[in-house]
Amino acid sequence: MKASQFFISTLKEAPADAEVASHQLMTRAGLIKKLGAGIYTYMPMGLRVVQKVEAIVREEMNRAGAVELSMPVVQPAELWQETKRFETMGPELLRIQDRHGRDYVVQPTSEEVVTDIARQELRSYKQLPRNFYQIQTKFRDERRPRFGLMRGREFTMKDAYSFDRDVDAAKASYQVMAQAYRRIFDRFGLRYRAVAADSGAIGGDLSEEFQVIAATGEDAIVYCPGSEYAANMEKAEALAPAGPRPAPAHSMAKTPTPGKATCADVAALLNLPLQNTVKSLVLATDETNQAGEIVRSQVWLLLLRGDHDMNEIKVGKLPGLDAGFRFATLAEIKAHFGCEPGYLGPIGLLQPVRVVVDREVAVMADWVCGANTPDFHWTGVNWGRDLPEPELVADIRNVVAGDASPDGAGPLAIERGIEVGHVFYLGTKYSRAMNATFLGEDGKPAFFEMGCYGIGITRLPAAAIEQNHDERGIIWPDAIAPFTVVLCAITPDRFPEVKVAAEQLYVQLLAAGVDVILDDRGERPGAMFADWELIGVPHRVTIGDRGLKEGLVEYQHRRDTGATKIALTDILAHLKGQLSK
Amino acid sequence: MKASQFFISTLKEAPADAEVASHQLMTRAGLIKKLGAGIYTYMPMGLRVVQKVEAIVREEMNRAGAVELSMPVVQPAELWQETKRFETMGPELLRIQDRHGRDYVVQPTSEEVVTDIARQELRSYKQLPRNFYQIQTKFRDERRPRFGLMRGREFTMKDAYSFDRDVDAAKASYQVMAQAYRRIFDRFGLRYRAVAADSGAIGGDLSEEFQVIAATGEDAIVYCPGSEYAANMEKAEALAPAGPRPAPAHSMAKTPTPGKATCADVAALLNLPLQNTVKSLVLATDETNQAGEIVRSQVWLLLLRGDHDMNEIKVGKLPGLDAGFRFATLAEIKAHFGCEPGYLGPIGLLQPVRVVVDREVAVMADWVCGANTPDFHWTGVNWGRDLPEPELVADIRNVVAGDASPDGAGPLAIERGIEVGHVFYLGTKYSRAMNATFLGEDGKPAFFEMGCYGIGITRLPAAAIEQNHDERGIIWPDAIAPFTVVLCAITPDRFPEVKVAAEQLYVQLLAAGVDVILDDRGERPGAMFADWELIGVPHRVTIGDRGLKEGLVEYQHRRDTGATKIALTDILAHLKGQLSK
Repeated sequence: MKASQFFISTLKEAPADAEVASHQLMTRAGLIKKLGAGIYTYMPMGLRVVQKVEAIVREEMNRAGAVELSMPVVQPAELWQETKRFETMGPELLRIQDRHGRDYVVQPTSEEVVTDIARQELRSYKQLPRNFYQIQTKFRDERRPRFGLMRGREFTMKDAYSFDRDVDAAKASYQVMAQAYRRIFDRFGLRYRAVAADSGAIGGDLSEEFQVIAATGEDAIVYCPGSEYAANMEKAEALAPAGPRPAPAHSMAKTPTPGKATCADVAALLNLPLQNTVKSLVLATDETNQAGEIVRSQVWLLLLRGDHDMNEIKVGKLPGLDAGFRFATLAEIKAHFGCEPGYLGPIGLLQPVRVVVDREVAVMADWVCGANTPDFHWTGVNWGRDLPEPELVADIRNVVAGDASPDGAGPLAIERGIEVGHVFYLGTKYSRAMNATFLGEDGKPAFFEMGCYGIGITRLPAAAIEQNHDERGIIWPDAIAPFTVVLCAITPDRFPEVKVAAEQLYVQLLAAGVDVILDDRGERPGAMFADWELIGVPHRVTIGDRGLKEGLVEYQHRRDTGATKIALTDILAHLKGQLSK
Repeated sequence: MKASQFFISTLKEAPADAEVASHQLMTRAGLIKKLGAGIYTYMPMGLRVVQKVEAIVREEMNRAGAVELSMPVVQPAELWQETKRFETMGPELLRIQDRHGRDYVVQPTSEEVVTDIARQELRSYKQLPRNFYQIQTKFRDERRPRFGLMRGREFTMKDAYSFDRDVDAAKASYQVMAQAYRRIFDRFGLRYRAVAADSGAIGGDLSEEFQVIAATGEDAIVYCPGSEYAANMEKAEALAPAGPRPAPAHSMAKTPTPGKATCADVAALLNLPLQNTVKSLVLATDETNQAGEIVRSQVWLLLLRGDHDMNEIKVGKLPGLDAGFRFATLAEIKAHFGCEPGYLGPIGLLQPVRVVVDREVAVMADWVCGANTPDFHWTGVNWGRDLPEPELVADIRNVVAGDASPDGAGPLAIERGIEVGHVFYLGTKYSRAMNATFLGEDGKPAFFEMGCYGIGITRLPAAAIEQNHDERGIIWPDAIAPFTVVLCAITPDRFPEVKVAAEQLYVQLLAAGVDVILDDRGERPGAMFADWELIGVPHRVTIGDRGLKEGLVEYQHRRDTGATKIALTDILAHLKGQLSK
């Protein structure tokens, strides 16, 4: 491609609403152009990146035996009513009425349509396993779209759906996809982690997120540097601490802590480590009758170490809390604790509550907690002496860096990531809802065992930029760069020999299969280099008249701080060496 | 590709709602699957065809200097309000409200968005010419979707838009696209015509339709077998007949024609050629005030030869009729002619009307027309004798086969076509409406001169099938076949040598770059051949145990009535010869 025949449009300033680096740089480099809230045009430079991402995904999906089709963007509501998602998905689902007043949705995913295809097309176990995928436009009506392509409303997703005859076969299909995803993300050339994720009510370990590592990522990723263990924060288990509980060393005392309503403030006042404090979280669950009215509520007290945070997913799996919970009201708290929040604790309640004790708290001695009296805390509290031994002990907290890895391979570390892929075992959730069956080997109808597998095609470039950029602009990995090599001719209009040499090298590189752009726009060198550093093309070759007199050109990788002089006759070999890295 | 790893699903019966061959065959061959009215899933076999069409279009658009981008499917209404199309497009435009109640549309085309991009990005004449294109999902909420992909609601279109500094440059850009379209349609391997089309109010000849020839086409294409002339029915000019009007031979007589209200019936009753009759069409135009109320109406009488049809586009360009017209009401007809339709004519009116005489009628002698008396016609009518010479003579009819070609190269012929592409000079229609300007060489802002260029990517396969099918199924041209070659192994499970030879040939063909599918499903030969004849893969190679003993395989083109025996060692060369045809 010659730059004069392409469309390049760079900006000095990022738009005011661009909060993150990828949004700023994609806009400044002319990769995307905002049309409305969360809605972007992929400009020529950006579309090339998207198409390279698509090509890698398509190749590996095909290699893994998945078959591509393309489902409609606008889908009749009837199918979405079968699974009840037309109602349950809420305002994120963009709903439309056509000219005849019939209901449609703009697809956010396509479980319903693909399950409808399967129940018509896959009639026998002999046609299984089967994996259909598409690369298609999706829409999610985010309440607050932001961060450019990171949390847009219209986006492109690769969504794949597997259909299997039984759980074992479904697990095998899941593993095929999980492996294909590793190949795909390896090929992108990004640092990523495949992390275990919560698989919801289904259980088992058949859910993994593919997270691109970036300091600005929305998700916390827990991993063990000493092993392959990696999980997202929702999923990562906090083990029970090793060793027995220390013996009590202090007696319990009601200590004034005026105005100190947080564990951190109390610890500071008492000159104790935060790790000696225990915080009290008060939840409630409601029992309803068939009319949906609340007939009875239950108050719960959760005890966590002062420096730990509650993990809602883990709490939501505990018996009694697994049908949904809420924070208790102020009235409920006063009725049970006789005190307002800030000084709550497990000792001396007005009415009984159900207590859940975090694994860590269960082995603490001489701890501090609220005294259920304003401006007072208990210090030197000990299990079995000052209050009964805990009945329900569970992992209800987020892990923190330094916690022991569940696989015993050392301490855990935490970094941040951007979720770009997800593989998920669905079980029969959709096939049951839509009565999608096949005839099994025993001649009886059976529900499909399903899996779903997504990759955010247009989110991936944004994640790549969050991971790979500097103050000058984007730094693309070779595989998904809009162009792999840029050939900069310095003032070719003044130096015909530069123009000729650049054109010759350009043709030579094209013939060698290199994805090269020749910048023949005639820009001044400073502006030209600034453009390509902003756009982030990884390899740059510069041809100027002075070097050319000595038969030399310059090579510079986007990460290099300076250029290297290379003989013009060696540059192709040099580039090939760089590209094969 | 191996069939066992692909998805093949054929049907014996076409769905009840499939009226045309392409819809029936695409459904039976498993290319598409209906999801809702006018909304289809492209199944794996169909998507391959669509992707091949896309690839050809993309290559030739790039070659012609157009640059690809991708505009959103869901577009804010604001831009559509600037051009007033949000209101004027009517119910074909699918409108949406998001969760905040803001208006959006699902793009039917993208003139508004691309013009918005141009007015932001193209600031100087130095950035022109520029041509942006996309291949994207579109939606038109057709009142009555039908004929499968031929008149669907959701479809894929390639839409390109050119921006130029002046009319001459815009015409040059138009010609570049018109040439690119010829290359694209040549590559598809279909019989087509590029026909001149009406360019609306803009005038000039800068509008061409690309019509795929098919007996079932919706459009009549007029062409001259003796020259390059081709136009659609709306556009094709009917020349004034050569030679002078014959002298009157009969006197005018009021002739009873009881119950004969059509020219055909009158001609039959009077034993005269239909060409001797003249039919009267009564139109009306309305003049409105600023409030939109009708303040005055004008009645028009159009005279056409009995066997000719009115051409509404031509009529709509006549002075006085060019702001819109309607058929006259019964009350208007009675008030002016004193008679009901069926016996109307230009002689003896109660109130004056404006008369438009077709070129053909103006040179007729001794003609027949209604007498403005029920059950009576005038015969032997002659201009200048029985009524004044015509004042307004114009081409207001559709041409018919045998009419003289406007380029003087002989008689016209008519065939039917399916419109799959359109190149169109837009002028400043959109740039003015959206105030889209650039700085000209003179330093002053000027409106972009625009053109738009569409190809119905998902309509093209349907048109190809309408042109190329037989009672057994589809017959694809090589370039857009889902697979170019199918390799059929006969009962490979019973004959290991067949299996081995088929696999070896398959690998050999793949290595030679042939797009081949190996049918390894183990189907019986009859069912296997029927599948591939239905799907329409153009080249078939069959390997069976008997032939193999003599080192022979069979080759059959989809159009051949029988197979040809070819030595296994020669088959690759033979195929290459066939594919290069």
